[in-house]
Amino acid sequence: MKKYTSVDDILNLNELLNLAKKIKANPLSNKYLGKDKTIGLLFFNPSLRTRLSTQKAARNLGMDCMVMNLNTEGWTLEFEDGTVMDGIASEHIKEAAKVISQYCDIIAIRCFPTLRDKEKDEEETVISSFVKYATVPVISLEGATEHPLQALADALTIEEYKKTERPKVVLSWAPHPKALPQSVSNSFVKIMKKMEVDFIITHPEGYELNPEITKGVPIEYNQEKAFKNADFIYAKNWSNYTNYGKIISEDPKWTISKRQMELTNHARFMHCLPVRRNMIVNDDILDSEASIVIPEANNRTYSAQTILTKILERLI
Amino acid sequence: MKKYTSVDDILNLNELLNLAKKIKANPLSNKYLGKDKTIGLLFFNPSLRTRLSTQKAARNLGMDCMVMNLNTEGWTLEFEDGTVMDGIASEHIKEAAKVISQYCDIIAIRCFPTLRDKEKDEEETVISSFVKYATVPVISLEGATEHPLQALADALTIEEYKKTERPKVVLSWAPHPKALPQSVSNSFVKIMKKMEVDFIITHPEGYELNPEITKGVPIEYNQEKAFKNADFIYAKNWSNYTNYGKIISEDPKWTISKRQMELTNHARFMHCLPVRRNMIVNDDILDSEASIVIPEANNRTYSAQTILTKILERLI
Amino acid sequence: MKKYTSVDDILNLNELLNLAKKIKANPLSNKYLGKDKTIGLLFFNPSLRTRLSTQKAARNLGMDCMVMNLNTEGWTLEFEDGTVMDGIASEHIKEAAKVISQYCDIIAIRCFPTLRDKEKDEEETVISSFVKYATVPVISLEGATEHPLQALADALTIEEYKKTERPKVVLSWAPHPKALPQSVSNSFVKIMKKMEVDFIITHPEGYELNPEITKGVPIEYNQEKAFKNADFIYAKNWSNYTNYGKIISEDPKWTISKRQMELTNHARFMHCLPVRRNMIVNDDILDSEASIVIPEANNRTYSAQTILTKILERLI
Repeated sequence: MKKYTSVDDILNLNELLNLAKKIKANPLSNKYLGKDKTIGLLFFNPSLRTRLSTQKAARNLGMDCMVMNLNTEGWTLEFEDGTVMDGIASEHIKEAAKVISQYCDIIAIRCFPTLRDKEKDEEETVISSFVKYATVPVISLEGATEHPLQALADALTIEEYKKTERPKVVLSWAPHPKALPQSVSNSFVKIMKKMEVDFIITHPEGYELNPEITKGVPIEYNQEKAFKNADFIYAKNWSNYTNYGKIISEDPKWTISKRQMELTNHARFMHCLPVRRNMIVNDDILDSEASIVIPEANNRTYSAQTILTKILERLI
Repeated sequence: MKKYTSVDDILNLNELLNLAKKIKANPLSNKYLGKDKTIGLLFFNPSLRTRLSTQKAARNLGMDCMVMNLNTEGWTLEFEDGTVMDGIASEHIKEAAKVISQYCDIIAIRCFPTLRDKEKDEEETVISSFVKYATVPVISLEGATEHPLQALADALTIEEYKKTERPKVVLSWAPHPKALPQSVSNSFVKIMKKMEVDFIITHPEGYELNPEITKGVPIEYNQEKAFKNADFIYAKNWSNYTNYGKIISEDPKWTISKRQMELTNHARFMHCLPVRRNMIVNDDILDSEASIVIPEANNRTYSAQTILTKILERLI
Repeated sequence: MKKYTSVDDILNLNELLNLAKKIKANPLSNKYLGKDKTIGLLFFNPSLRTRLSTQKAARNLGMDCMVMNLNTEGWTLEFEDGTVMDGIASEHIKEAAKVISQYCDIIAIRCFPTLRDKEKDEEETVISSFVKYATVPVISLEGATEHPLQALADALTIEEYKKTERPKVVLSWAPHPKALPQSVSNSFVKIMKKMEVDFIITHPEGYELNPEITKGVPIEYNQEKAFKNADFIYAKNWSNYTNYGKIISEDPKWTISKRQMELTNHARFMHCLPVRRNMIVNDDILDSEASIVIPEANNRTYSAQTILTKILERLI
């Protein structure tokens, strides 16, 4: 694997999931693969799970970690070509990416979307620039339009908890007080399309994700109908894609509650976390046996370790 | 040891102090005890000694460290139960603590008191919530009402520097321009009550600490009288407990100077640091042979390493 | 080597450069020199290259790293002697430096100049205070008046890329929208004076650096004249020294472009980075074969590793 910035970078999901299971069963079995190798974890945004689980994964492989908050600890970066840098930005991504590539064997970056400039977000300006100019493999720790490490952890979790060959998986929009990225949902849709599942998306009318991504996936505006016989409910808020970055509904009927869960086939409840209690999902669901958000978060370590393993194997 | 969030968690202080001395004599003798184990150091507040000495202690035991400033690097946490999370907080402590427990073998947290909400502070909301929801041992790096790692370092320092079987130890309030927590003083009082010392507290009238904690300890409002024949002077400012979080005196007469130190039995001067020079204590005392604040700070490493050792021994 | 806070600390540059080349050829050959030793990297200011390359260098020697942003993660420090600490500063450098010395075997600090208080800057208050009070070796990660690790990397780069025994090296001022320190330029001048090079400085009249530092170095106000037959162009902005910290010119004619580079002997272009594109230097130069800013930044690792090696050898 040369890079992992999108679910599209997965060539063979089954192979990855099998490797992930092997790694999870024995996380320290490859403690020397990353010996004397360094990963740079670069954050433009807050992070709890990603920050800690990726470090953990790297250490499980014997790698050194250098963590940096680029906004506060480094220099403001310029991403435009040909600009006269007389403003706030002190350093061009061209230099930054090439320089960091000399200190790190792998570069991992988190950079959220603006949610204002759709074109710029869709170009994944920051991560794409790192991919373009870095001379080492690049991993997304969540970009403007995808969160591929989360998606791999989600797929592993479904693989572990499924009770039928072909479970029914529902991605359900849920309300949230702040405008959120579509990244987690996009990557989840992409990875579900690679799995043996009956996959359906439900959200209020007008909340369609990027149609290029959801192409071929049934969309059901009636949440209760969508939940029928579901084996997995994956809840997530996202801000509007058409009316880009806007909140057009905060309808509390969409909050996941007993009412909807009772329509399912004893479905498991999933969420990438952090989750707003009693906004996205009610306490009684999140605190019930149905919820697998905690083991799902645990799988972030093995998702990251799987990708690092695939990349390190190529580097050696 | 299952957790260390209060001096009350110490069952046998002598045993701990003996272990601390052994560790200090040979800090790297147990370099494999923490192999492949990770400690998460989570900070809600500034820290110099605690941040560095706890990392040092963990590395001395071969542990990996992941350091996080929760306020700026992570998500705002919610600690209330049953709330509709439509405000600033993005993540509930229930999820955060359980998730971090999957990446870390030990969780250590610093969270200062509000000094406004006495009840909330006394409940140690943050640390108690971590203890409640984490599935791994929790260590306080200073909470709302206690600083138990500091207290253990203080006890070790007194043990090392005492010249008599039963030294006289004085905890003296001293003025400070900012309202400070009572945590260091509370833990110091608690640990002194477990030691073979003549212990006395001196402060201006009205500056009584929590009476449940100081129960049985003589309180002397006349600082000079209290200092007579003392072997150790432990200076500390704290804000008012009754008139909670308020500053009711800045009386410079309470600043530790030659005048008071000359009344002692060549007492050693102690302070947890950081210390405001010429507010808490005059330069001539802090820069004199009497001051043992630097070796006291050094003992922070061995205090942390002792607690980590006790916890790791139980984990293996 | 006892400390490295100035190029003046270099006793034998040739020996250092030979060591640097040996280290670069085999960076992991001394992986046990720093075993069980810790470096504390303390930052008062932003840093990308220095932050990452110094960590990388320390890890190459087997050292543990503790990184701290002193302004946001620690306590505000007081540097004045005898002051009554009733203001913002919570901790005196005397205690801080002594305490950190107990947790770290080497202390490295970055602290930029105020560019307002010339006297204070020239005293290198922060780094000098650490040198004075720390009980372990101190390294500058860029101080108020020098950036000696950068200078050593620059010297190594010139050594690697020179095509003649005695190349002509030009330090050229270039425009910049913000007032910048003179540190990089000062250290570069100092180290060039120790090398077998024809060294000349060019800048607009009135932009003279500290004359004590540039003593004996030809200064040419005509940039084009200075560039003639040059083998290396080292571009850098600095704010005014006489009219301390002020910007008195933003003349775009000084931006390094083809026009000036064509006057040179196919000179290599150098800059410490971060560099403002099309302010300091035009894209076509920076993106051309002439530019060696990326390998120059790579040498930061070996410059740091050389200094750490010299210091560690003395510690053992």
